[in-house]
Amino acid sequence: MNLPDFSRLCIHTITTKPWPIETAAAKFSAAGVKGITVWRDALTGRDIAPTGRLLRDHGLSIVSLCRGGFFPALTAEGRTKALDDNRRAIADAHALGAPLIVLVCGAVPGQSLVESRKQIVDGIAALLPECRAASVKLAIEPLHPMYAGDRSAVNTLAQANDMVEQLGSPFVGVALDVYHLWWDPALEAEIARCGQLNALFAYHVCDWRTPTLDLLNDRGLMGEGCIPLRQIRTWIEATGYRGFNEVEIFSTRLWATDQDEYLKQIVAAYRDHV
Amino acid sequence: MNLPDFSRLCIHTITTKPWPIETAAAKFSAAGVKGITVWRDALTGRDIAPTGRLLRDHGLSIVSLCRGGFFPALTAEGRTKALDDNRRAIADAHALGAPLIVLVCGAVPGQSLVESRKQIVDGIAALLPECRAASVKLAIEPLHPMYAGDRSAVNTLAQANDMVEQLGSPFVGVALDVYHLWWDPALEAEIARCGQLNALFAYHVCDWRTPTLDLLNDRGLMGEGCIPLRQIRTWIEATGYRGFNEVEIFSTRLWATDQDEYLKQIVAAYRDHV
Repeated sequence: MNLPDFSRLCIHTITTKPWPIETAAAKFSAAGVKGITVWRDALTGRDIAPTGRLLRDHGLSIVSLCRGGFFPALTAEGRTKALDDNRRAIADAHALGAPLIVLVCGAVPGQSLVESRKQIVDGIAALLPECRAASVKLAIEPLHPMYAGDRSAVNTLAQANDMVEQLGSPFVGVALDVYHLWWDPALEAEIARCGQLNALFAYHVCDWRTPTLDLLNDRGLMGEGCIPLRQIRTWIEATGYRGFNEVEIFSTRLWATDQDEYLKQIVAAYRDHV
Repeated sequence: MNLPDFSRLCIHTITTKPWPIETAAAKFSAAGVKGITVWRDALTGRDIAPTGRLLRDHGLSIVSLCRGGFFPALTAEGRTKALDDNRRAIADAHALGAPLIVLVCGAVPGQSLVESRKQIVDGIAALLPECRAASVKLAIEPLHPMYAGDRSAVNTLAQANDMVEQLGSPFVGVALDVYHLWWDPALEAEIARCGQLNALFAYHVCDWRTPTLDLLNDRGLMGEGCIPLRQIRTWIEATGYRGFNEVEIFSTRLWATDQDEYLKQIVAAYRDHV
C-alpha cells in the first residue's frame, strides 16, 4: 500500500490567516504537514526564539520567513529605511531558526522599472554581510507582471536568474511561485538555468482561477484553476530540487470558510494535484 | 506657435462606450480626432458599408476593426466555429473599409498554453486566403499575462514576433498595447525586432493604475498611471512607425463620467502624455 507522501508539504501561515501561529502549528502538525513558512505578521507580539522552538516541538521544519524586500524608493532615506527593515528580518529569521527569507523586491509608481531593478540589486548586495553572519539566505521571488506597478520590478524567472548571476553569492537564490510564472513561455528553460545556478531555494504552489476577481486575494486552491502543476513540478525536480512544496494561498473566499475543513482540502489538493 | 499635433490620434469606440458609433463619430471629429477603431459591438443593428461611409464623411480614418481571434477550443467543432466568426469579421472589415483586424488570440482553461498557441497559429494560417482576397490584415495583440487563463495564450511581444516569423505573411503583424507589455524587460529589443519584420501594424495607449481594482475594466487615462508612454513611443517611432496612436481604455469609472468632458480629457492627456 502506498501512503501519500506529505514529507515535503509546507504551508504558509498566511494560507490559514484566521489562525494564530500557535493554532496553525498544532493543526498543521496533526494533519501530517511537515513544514511551515512564517509570515512576519504572524509573529506580532510574540517572542521570536520561543516561537521557533514551539514550531519545531510540533515536528515542523521552519522553511522560510516571509517577507523581506521592497528595496526601491524615491529617496536615499527611503532606501536606507528599507535596508534597516530587511536587517530586522534577517535578525528575526536567525532568532526563529528560518534559513531563508523570501523577497518581494518592490517597485515604486513614478520610478522607472530599470531604476527600481538597479536599486533591488544594490539593496540585496548591501545585506550580504548580515546574511553570512546570520546564516540566512535570501530568495528573490519574481512576481506576476500585474504587480510591476507597485510590488515588484522583477517579473520573470529570467530576470531573477540574471540578478542571481550578477550578485554571485551562495546566499542569493530564487523563490519560484507558480502563480506568478506559470504563463511564461520561457519557464521550463529558466527553471533549468536556475537549477544550474544552484539557485532554486523555494517552490510555492496554488492555482490561477478564471475569472480572477481580485488582483491580490483571489488565488485558487491547487486544482481549482489552470496552472499545470504536475508539469511544473516535473521541471523543478529535473533540476534536483528536493525541498518543500509550499502552499501559499491568499484568498478572501477561502479565509472565510471553516479553517479545519479548509486544511483538509489543502492536504487532499496537495495529494491530488501537486 | 506650435499647434498640438492630433493628426495621428485615434480613439476606439469602446473608449467612449456609452456613445453610439454615430455620436462618437461626430464628437471625435469635432474634437479634432483623426482616426477611429471600431469595435464590433458598435456595429450591432447597423448596415456596415453605410456606417463606414458615415465615419469617412466625418473625416475619420478607419484604423481597424476590433476584434477577431479566440481561435483555441477543446473541440474541432469549436475551432471551426471560431474560424467562421473570423471570416465574418474579415467580411465586415472589408465592408466597413477597415484595413486591419486586431486579434485577441484566445486561451482555454483546461488546455495547455502550448496547445492553444499551436491552434492560434493554425487558425491565423487558415484565414490568409480570405485576408488576401479582402485586403484585410490581421494584427496579433499580445495580452497581459493576467489574461493567459482565458483570453490569450500570447502574452509577450517576443511570442507575437515569433508567430509573425513563423507565418511569414505580409498580412500578419502585431498590435502593440502598452497596457499589456509595459512591464516586459525585453520590450525595447522586441519592438526593434517587430519593426525589422515590418510587422508593427498598430499601437494602443492607455495607462496602468495602482492599485488596479479590476482585471478588465480599470484601465487608466494616459498620465493616470505608471506606464512610460513617451519612452515606449520613442522606441516605436525608432522603427519608422508613423501610424495612429490609438486610445483604448476600458474603464467602468470613466464610462460613468460625462463623455463630453471625458473626450476633452482624452485629447488633453494625448497632448501631454503620449
